[in-house]
Amino acid sequence: MLIVGELINASRKSVKEILENQDAAGVAKLARDQREHGADYIDVNAGVFVGREPELLKWLVATVQSVAEVPCCIDSPDPKAIAAALAVHKGTAMINSISLEKERYDTLLPLVAESKSKVVALCMSDDGMPETADQRMAIADKLINGLVRSHVPLANIYVDPLVQPVATNNAFGVEFLQAVERITQTFKGVHTMCGLSNISFGLPERKFINQTFMVMAIARGLDGAIVNPLDARMMGCITTAETLMGHDAYCMNYLKAFRAGKLTAS
Amino acid sequence: MLIVGELINASRKSVKEILENQDAAGVAKLARDQREHGADYIDVNAGVFVGREPELLKWLVATVQSVAEVPCCIDSPDPKAIAAALAVHKGTAMINSISLEKERYDTLLPLVAESKSKVVALCMSDDGMPETADQRMAIADKLINGLVRSHVPLANIYVDPLVQPVATNNAFGVEFLQAVERITQTFKGVHTMCGLSNISFGLPERKFINQTFMVMAIARGLDGAIVNPLDARMMGCITTAETLMGHDAYCMNYLKAFRAGKLTAS
Repeated sequence: MLIVGELINASRKSVKEILENQDAAGVAKLARDQREHGADYIDVNAGVFVGREPELLKWLVATVQSVAEVPCCIDSPDPKAIAAALAVHKGTAMINSISLEKERYDTLLPLVAESKSKVVALCMSDDGMPETADQRMAIADKLINGLVRSHVPLANIYVDPLVQPVATNNAFGVEFLQAVERITQTFKGVHTMCGLSNISFGLPERKFINQTFMVMAIARGLDGAIVNPLDARMMGCITTAETLMGHDAYCMNYLKAFRAGKLTAS
Repeated sequence: MLIVGELINASRKSVKEILENQDAAGVAKLARDQREHGADYIDVNAGVFVGREPELLKWLVATVQSVAEVPCCIDSPDPKAIAAALAVHKGTAMINSISLEKERYDTLLPLVAESKSKVVALCMSDDGMPETADQRMAIADKLINGLVRSHVPLANIYVDPLVQPVATNNAFGVEFLQAVERITQTFKGVHTMCGLSNISFGLPERKFINQTFMVMAIARGLDGAIVNPLDARMMGCITTAETLMGHDAYCMNYLKAFRAGKLTAS
């Protein structure tokens, strides 16, 4: 399971302030904390700073990697911002994300191919957001084929089937889950990942829904997630679901998490 | 989701005493409590009383049904005990369980067919307990075909793929989950159900594992469970997973459970 730590996102007020003040110690703390709690990648997002994304993402990547030996997930729809961040990134970055929206696709594809980065392939097109598993499969198929034709290895592709709120439409949860399973089975070697908090939009006890949906998605094959690694219960759910999926020899990870008091803490 | 309340089981010390004392009020309380907390069927089991099962199961069924308008899940491997209990049962009972063990199969099959009961079909044979999804499928196939040839409707069959501890073998969780999905997809109209606490045998924080595994099994198609309906967190997990599977129009059941404080209570 690939864990991308989501906390360095400028849509959060505290992170916006960190960026405004160029508070390197603030970035360092968020990077270290997430790394220590299991993040394999650190997401960096400066999306709310229109026009300043290239400069700020570059600074975020450099600052994160100066304190933690960890790759970044460069979170922007803007190819210029991504290129700037990649230029200072050490190791294999992840680009978050390419989609089937024509302009984004055309400008990002060469960048993904050249940089040999991992890439999140978001199931979104100029026709808008997909609702059914079939629609997601159609977009995933085009994205994966386009990437493979540009020599991006299957193992570097993380398809995000795009979660939508179950309160809007009963079927949005199960259509997403079906998409995860079908992508995993149809395109052997391709990964799936997502941020899934949209599932609970409009409902109470959102954390509980998000945790439950994460466990369900893992049961259907999800092998990457953009989450808050400091959310102990969510991480306990992921560890336990991974154990139950047979990805934990001798239940060592489960037992380690238990001994560290990480399993059912809230 | 069919919920079978598991509490009236003589392997529990308090229930053993209730049976020894013919404490009808004790049975009544367990029946009412489970019914009020969402049990569709009340399991009755007197297995520890060797030789007295027919008499005791009969008494349990009569006592349960005298206080709660609810059918029973008659839990015994002994055809004589099941026949005795069925004789006093009102409405559609559930027989728990037939298996492919020859003696049990041969004697129970006519009883299941005649009584028009629902039936749990346990994936167990004279070759022992299955380990892989393939072995479970082979047993399920024979059981379902045998029942159908005896005119038991598919909708009355609840296949129990048999949970085994993940601490014994890493793959036991995922092989079970695969079996649930394959049975559901291969035999359209057949149900699956199980008691799943064996999954966590030998590990700490068993309740948390059981809850997580339940959510995963629902994500793969499980539509019946033998559980303790008074376990609020387990029931909250089931309600939420059902909502996320699209079985809850307008999220009404979820919201109802939330308003009743039932979702994340421990």
